[in-house]
Amino acid sequence: METIKVIIAGPRGRMGKEAVYMVEQSKNLQLAAVLDRKYNGQKLSEIEGFSGVEAPIFTDINECFSEVEADVLIDLTTPETGYIHTKTALEHNIRPVVGTTGFTEEQLKELKELAEEKSLGCIIAPNFAIGAVLMMKFSEMAAKYFQDVEIIELHHDRKLDAPSGTAIKTAQMIAGVRERKQQGHPEEKETMKGARGADMEGMHIHSVRLPGLIAHQQVLFGADGETLTIRHDSYNRASFMTGVKVCVETVVKVETLIYGMENILD
Amino acid sequence: METIKVIIAGPRGRMGKEAVYMVEQSKNLQLAAVLDRKYNGQKLSEIEGFSGVEAPIFTDINECFSEVEADVLIDLTTPETGYIHTKTALEHNIRPVVGTTGFTEEQLKELKELAEEKSLGCIIAPNFAIGAVLMMKFSEMAAKYFQDVEIIELHHDRKLDAPSGTAIKTAQMIAGVRERKQQGHPEEKETMKGARGADMEGMHIHSVRLPGLIAHQQVLFGADGETLTIRHDSYNRASFMTGVKVCVETVVKVETLIYGMENILD
Amino acid sequence: METIKVIIAGPRGRMGKEAVYMVEQSKNLQLAAVLDRKYNGQKLSEIEGFSGVEAPIFTDINECFSEVEADVLIDLTTPETGYIHTKTALEHNIRPVVGTTGFTEEQLKELKELAEEKSLGCIIAPNFAIGAVLMMKFSEMAAKYFQDVEIIELHHDRKLDAPSGTAIKTAQMIAGVRERKQQGHPEEKETMKGARGADMEGMHIHSVRLPGLIAHQQVLFGADGETLTIRHDSYNRASFMTGVKVCVETVVKVETLIYGMENILD
Amino acid sequence: METIKVIIAGPRGRMGKEAVYMVEQSKNLQLAAVLDRKYNGQKLSEIEGFSGVEAPIFTDINECFSEVEADVLIDLTTPETGYIHTKTALEHNIRPVVGTTGFTEEQLKELKELAEEKSLGCIIAPNFAIGAVLMMKFSEMAAKYFQDVEIIELHHDRKLDAPSGTAIKTAQMIAGVRERKQQGHPEEKETMKGARGADMEGMHIHSVRLPGLIAHQQVLFGADGETLTIRHDSYNRASFMTGVKVCVETVVKVETLIYGMENILD
Repeated sequence: METIKVIIAGPRGRMGKEAVYMVEQSKNLQLAAVLDRKYNGQKLSEIEGFSGVEAPIFTDINECFSEVEADVLIDLTTPETGYIHTKTALEHNIRPVVGTTGFTEEQLKELKELAEEKSLGCIIAPNFAIGAVLMMKFSEMAAKYFQDVEIIELHHDRKLDAPSGTAIKTAQMIAGVRERKQQGHPEEKETMKGARGADMEGMHIHSVRLPGLIAHQQVLFGADGETLTIRHDSYNRASFMTGVKVCVETVVKVETLIYGMENILD
Repeated sequence: METIKVIIAGPRGRMGKEAVYMVEQSKNLQLAAVLDRKYNGQKLSEIEGFSGVEAPIFTDINECFSEVEADVLIDLTTPETGYIHTKTALEHNIRPVVGTTGFTEEQLKELKELAEEKSLGCIIAPNFAIGAVLMMKFSEMAAKYFQDVEIIELHHDRKLDAPSGTAIKTAQMIAGVRERKQQGHPEEKETMKGARGADMEGMHIHSVRLPGLIAHQQVLFGADGETLTIRHDSYNRASFMTGVKVCVETVVKVETLIYGMENILD
Repeated sequence: METIKVIIAGPRGRMGKEAVYMVEQSKNLQLAAVLDRKYNGQKLSEIEGFSGVEAPIFTDINECFSEVEADVLIDLTTPETGYIHTKTALEHNIRPVVGTTGFTEEQLKELKELAEEKSLGCIIAPNFAIGAVLMMKFSEMAAKYFQDVEIIELHHDRKLDAPSGTAIKTAQMIAGVRERKQQGHPEEKETMKGARGADMEGMHIHSVRLPGLIAHQQVLFGADGETLTIRHDSYNRASFMTGVKVCVETVVKVETLIYGMENILD
Repeated sequence: METIKVIIAGPRGRMGKEAVYMVEQSKNLQLAAVLDRKYNGQKLSEIEGFSGVEAPIFTDINECFSEVEADVLIDLTTPETGYIHTKTALEHNIRPVVGTTGFTEEQLKELKELAEEKSLGCIIAPNFAIGAVLMMKFSEMAAKYFQDVEIIELHHDRKLDAPSGTAIKTAQMIAGVRERKQQGHPEEKETMKGARGADMEGMHIHSVRLPGLIAHQQVLFGADGETLTIRHDSYNRASFMTGVKVCVETVVKVETLIYGMENILD
């Protein structure tokens, strides 16, 4: 396995810090440089919280991409900055891995064309939590064989919206592969309003909120005599880094733009 | 441990059959006789499904209680018959264990007085599922220390009412020991109606219905940094017999009427 | 969706009864006839336990396949009888769905050739529990992204062998797609022998045995900050029928012999 | 509910910080002062990480206890310092809540006598995780009715010892209330060594180790037709504060020394 040389943009953000840590811990990855708004010309090790990380800091992207030999750019900045970074990276034959939901359709189209023109991989992912992506993918697969499913998502009680975005996306993916089915007994009755949860295409979604909980979801499938449960528990941001790493390892093998991690997992 | 001699009323019913089987399997219990509407003078072994069970069958309760030396009557008949059986048993110094919710306040009062007058134990239980009773009892205890709780009950999809009776009773027991608290974020919003379940005294109850499921409930308590979960899974009627056995072993040691298994578990 | 005409061999066995019930409940399936060792010329409705099921009973397989127009044979008999049934069905252009682990390599080879010669589907499945097959398949997929996994299987306490066959097969499938990894801390110590379970290719397998349990398995994957759990609960034999139905619906669309349900789920 | 005035010793330690935060968040508690080795005469708000917390800092315990009116001392220092703090607090009629396993039998005896002489409450707890303490207590209670139990404990893969101390303590508490029972089938066989876990008094204990996991335990009880599960998930140190708070609220109501939180939960 050859070493993949990586540049990280946004190393001092919360996600960025985890990414620096992940690259440093991975035998097959090497941190070639970082892009930051400040500290040009210093080493990361001079900044608090990064002792021992010798990568040089650049504030100018063109200078960075010209002087540093790199295979992959991990961008964890804002959509605006990220768009420029992604485009510039492709122009320098560096493959981008970008975590964002903020690119416009037009921007995505332009980047896709650029990636294909240059025969370079480029991965843009709204969600790097590989466990969550697998949970959704498996749920979609199981729904072909199990017509009945309910989703229970559980979060800390500071969360404002119910159901969670992941629960809704899971239900949408399931709805896409099954015939609509109104689940439960046709004559079932709620003696207390809301007991049967939210109804989405005949599926039921339940949102639990409790202090202590972090971010959890289980998808329950039932059929005569058996149930199948797929559950994801997310405890902290470190979980995103497994996904970032898979993307880095994948982006060097493909020659097109891929949107969404579910499309690189097989 | 001395052997307890038992008479079973209603041996051919679904619960009765399980009770006969349970007594036969228990080293410390002995089936002295059964009370049935039919087959007077035969042995149970002559009836299909009871091969090897040598207990004699009686149709007349007074004859049965006079001729047979017994410590305990297990009554699994109807409320009407059960009431007469219970009263007659106490008059014959036999301690009743009765599974019913159907006795009136007056009947209970009368039976309680009779039990105390004779210094005899008598246990009347609406629910013999010891696991379910413990789940409720533990939930009540935990609620003194955890202010936040949600209940998820899961049943087969032929069930008509939601939430289940057990879920409601659990919530009532919890409400009885805690100050009312409106759980969740004060500004939380359901983007899909019903997502947050039914609201009972500020607690949330969620009812899942799927083919394959039988009867399950979990009570989740949350506090900063931790959750405590109490879960009961009921797979079939055999589960009631653990409770019946505990009642039989308890009724010979007490000298009063006890209503509800939660009051004999310590 | 066209109706699929089905013949069931072995309708009075435990699995056979479930199959008759399943076909009768399925709108897209029709029970054309049954093959039995007895009751030639009668209707199934004349046999106890099958009231309302009008399918004719045959004892002679050639007579049955000649007189009855059918698409699929569901065979739930013994390996010996099943082999003859399968072969004869293919010769009559009827597609077999067979539940057995008992065919020899030679028999499978012969049947495969016959199926391909006739361009007929034929599905032979050691395990019809679709939920269990999906659990194994998902575990294999997840193992590509999660290097750390432990298996907990839980069964009733009358089971003699530990770990279960399904747990071993799951571990084998996982081992097939990942680099061997010795999990846990390199210096971990069992202060009580066996605490860390069985070691298979660096994975750990734990076998729980308790009365009340039926047949359950959960596969836990862990990575920094997250866990992914896939769980299957099997409550009774009815669960096999979801799989049988999928096989019936699949066998009419393929033109070769398929061994194992994991090879028809996509 | 009257406000309880609290002094915290060791406010800058990891547990101490959580305690300051907890007291500040609790309507019925008020932080009267803190005891520290440094910063005498300053306010806590002057120290980094405590903005807004106006409590005065003392380095001399006698000065602190003389000048500040307080009901309770929360001591989260070392056993050596904690012993002196506890004794001095009792002498000043302040009730101590101490988190330690490090006091000697003699020290405990002396403190108990002092508490009773002064009719003051004093709580010394090796474990403040109320959820874990309840899990153990409930398990002990359930074991009286369920003879069969297995324990699964799950921790991160940096943990060196298996099984965990909590699992062993839980098993000991269960063993204390039930007759020894060799669980599982008498003729069960491990086809892979260790599959059935560690054997303790006939119970089985299973230790799962995976990255991502934090500290979890479930206790499974089984009987004919049902299972009862008690599960505790600990996500971080904040969980200890629920227990500290219960101790503070309890210590003002009792007049003796209590060792171990299990003895104050009813």
